[in-house]
Amino acid sequence: MAISIGIDIGGTGTKLGIVDDDGKILIKKEFGTWAFDVFEEYVNELARIVKNMLSGLKGESDLQGIGIGSPMGKYVDGTINHASNLPWKGVLPIVSLLQKEFDVPVIITNDANTAALGEKVFGGAKDFNDFVMVTLGTGLGSGFVSNGKLVLGFQGFAGELGHVNIGRLEGRTCGCGKKDCLETYVSATGIKRTIFSLLAKRHVESRFRNVSFDDLSTEDITLAADNGDKIALEAFEFTGKILGRKLAEVVMLFNPEAIFLAGGLSLAGDYIIKPIRKYMEKDVLNVYRRKVQFRSSELGSEGASILGAASLVKGEFI
Amino acid sequence: MAISIGIDIGGTGTKLGIVDDDGKILIKKEFGTWAFDVFEEYVNELARIVKNMLSGLKGESDLQGIGIGSPMGKYVDGTINHASNLPWKGVLPIVSLLQKEFDVPVIITNDANTAALGEKVFGGAKDFNDFVMVTLGTGLGSGFVSNGKLVLGFQGFAGELGHVNIGRLEGRTCGCGKKDCLETYVSATGIKRTIFSLLAKRHVESRFRNVSFDDLSTEDITLAADNGDKIALEAFEFTGKILGRKLAEVVMLFNPEAIFLAGGLSLAGDYIIKPIRKYMEKDVLNVYRRKVQFRSSELGSEGASILGAASLVKGEFI
Repeated sequence: MAISIGIDIGGTGTKLGIVDDDGKILIKKEFGTWAFDVFEEYVNELARIVKNMLSGLKGESDLQGIGIGSPMGKYVDGTINHASNLPWKGVLPIVSLLQKEFDVPVIITNDANTAALGEKVFGGAKDFNDFVMVTLGTGLGSGFVSNGKLVLGFQGFAGELGHVNIGRLEGRTCGCGKKDCLETYVSATGIKRTIFSLLAKRHVESRFRNVSFDDLSTEDITLAADNGDKIALEAFEFTGKILGRKLAEVVMLFNPEAIFLAGGLSLAGDYIIKPIRKYMEKDVLNVYRRKVQFRSSELGSEGASILGAASLVKGEFI
Repeated sequence: MAISIGIDIGGTGTKLGIVDDDGKILIKKEFGTWAFDVFEEYVNELARIVKNMLSGLKGESDLQGIGIGSPMGKYVDGTINHASNLPWKGVLPIVSLLQKEFDVPVIITNDANTAALGEKVFGGAKDFNDFVMVTLGTGLGSGFVSNGKLVLGFQGFAGELGHVNIGRLEGRTCGCGKKDCLETYVSATGIKRTIFSLLAKRHVESRFRNVSFDDLSTEDITLAADNGDKIALEAFEFTGKILGRKLAEVVMLFNPEAIFLAGGLSLAGDYIIKPIRKYMEKDVLNVYRRKVQFRSSELGSEGASILGAASLVKGEFI
């Protein structure tokens, strides 16, 4: 049985699993990323767990490779470069360290790329050769597939849609050092900032008048919208407008057949999808109008992590 | 000897030639596109000229295929769709018509894509697998190469950088029906509009105070800049700023190794390239900074036409 390992390195936890060729997760584990001060110790623990999982597998199996999704994962060099929400600084040679332990291909890219590839290999994008994945979590990630292959770029850093400028709006500062990056408006954090901006601007009642920034969640905003909260409804419309306008540009550059949305904010459903679609359709040229499908990721949060990482081993899509 | 035919259909003239495998144009012809009211008559004349050229060729030759670059040329269907600056309306089945006359592959795409592919096959992009071609003529065209292949998109309409919105600026109307499309600022026509906008805004002397819009050319603007004309200098800075900011977004999405510039406005050299580069570098994330090369097309206007179209026959890049 052909199997592969998928590893998702996140700011809080690391998830990993053994995946078969049909995208079934046979065994999975999770451990805290922050428990290790020294990167080499973290990799040692990772290797130990992988070996344990493999020895726990029943029957014959043929390990095809190890795929890793990580913030700032760099395909070309096999490294993690200056990831601000991981415990270790600098350039981390994760691929060469793991390859000392395992005699199979080890491949890394960023987590939005693995989400896109996971959708292509195991999810709802099987029939699409040109599509875009947008992940709306703490930040905004994106992965582009063109001609059936992941768009990586010459450094391996393609797909940073979260950091394109949306045109001097409120001057929101971004973790990257720039201002008014798309993700400062369009992400789980971005919509929280919009709620607080609207609380300052509008003289209307809202359930958020007695909630602190840290206590506010995307689910709260959806619930408030269900109850007709004007601030929540305006925040969704505003967020969708900004993403829709930017996706109109993306559509005219890549001409994708579908745009997939994943991550916490995408669970708000029509509250966010309707304005995205409305403003996207408004800004594109006629030839693209009503041609792009909007889809939710079919893999859920596990797809954007373990399955996505494991799909990297399918080299035909890279 | 392996040869291919390159055909460039332009609003005024149609250029075509026989090209060998080294990118040498062996024979070329040109005729007026507007001399034919009926599209089928135009195609008949095209076929007649191609056959004439082929029979004029000395020695043994093996025709590999016919490549066509045309405004609104649609790769997927082999048609020209609603091209506003060609004499014929609707959807024109040029590939099927030519294939009745020639028993070789006939391939069409838009003229910015052929410019990109021509640069890859015969010009300065031979060693690049990820690059962008921007053509600055009457409008702004663009062609993207990723993973060594032309980005076509699922309808074959990728690369419409000229029609992305630059964020509600002066409200300039575009031929496409939208407002403030990139090409209304960044193109030979766009910089003329900027000159006139600045003549209205600024209370300074300029040699353009006694030139009409129709009499103004891009070369005039370069000459005026050479003589220190303030309106000309500001127009270049403004145009470069708008393109540079948009290219910063393109760089973060595609992570190209190089950006090629072609077309009339690109001949202004440093006047336009310096601000493009300055504002592009300012807006990109650190990882991309000083990594992108700016290049002028090595093929000149013939490359963006006959050679580019002929390069379509090299199917490995599509």
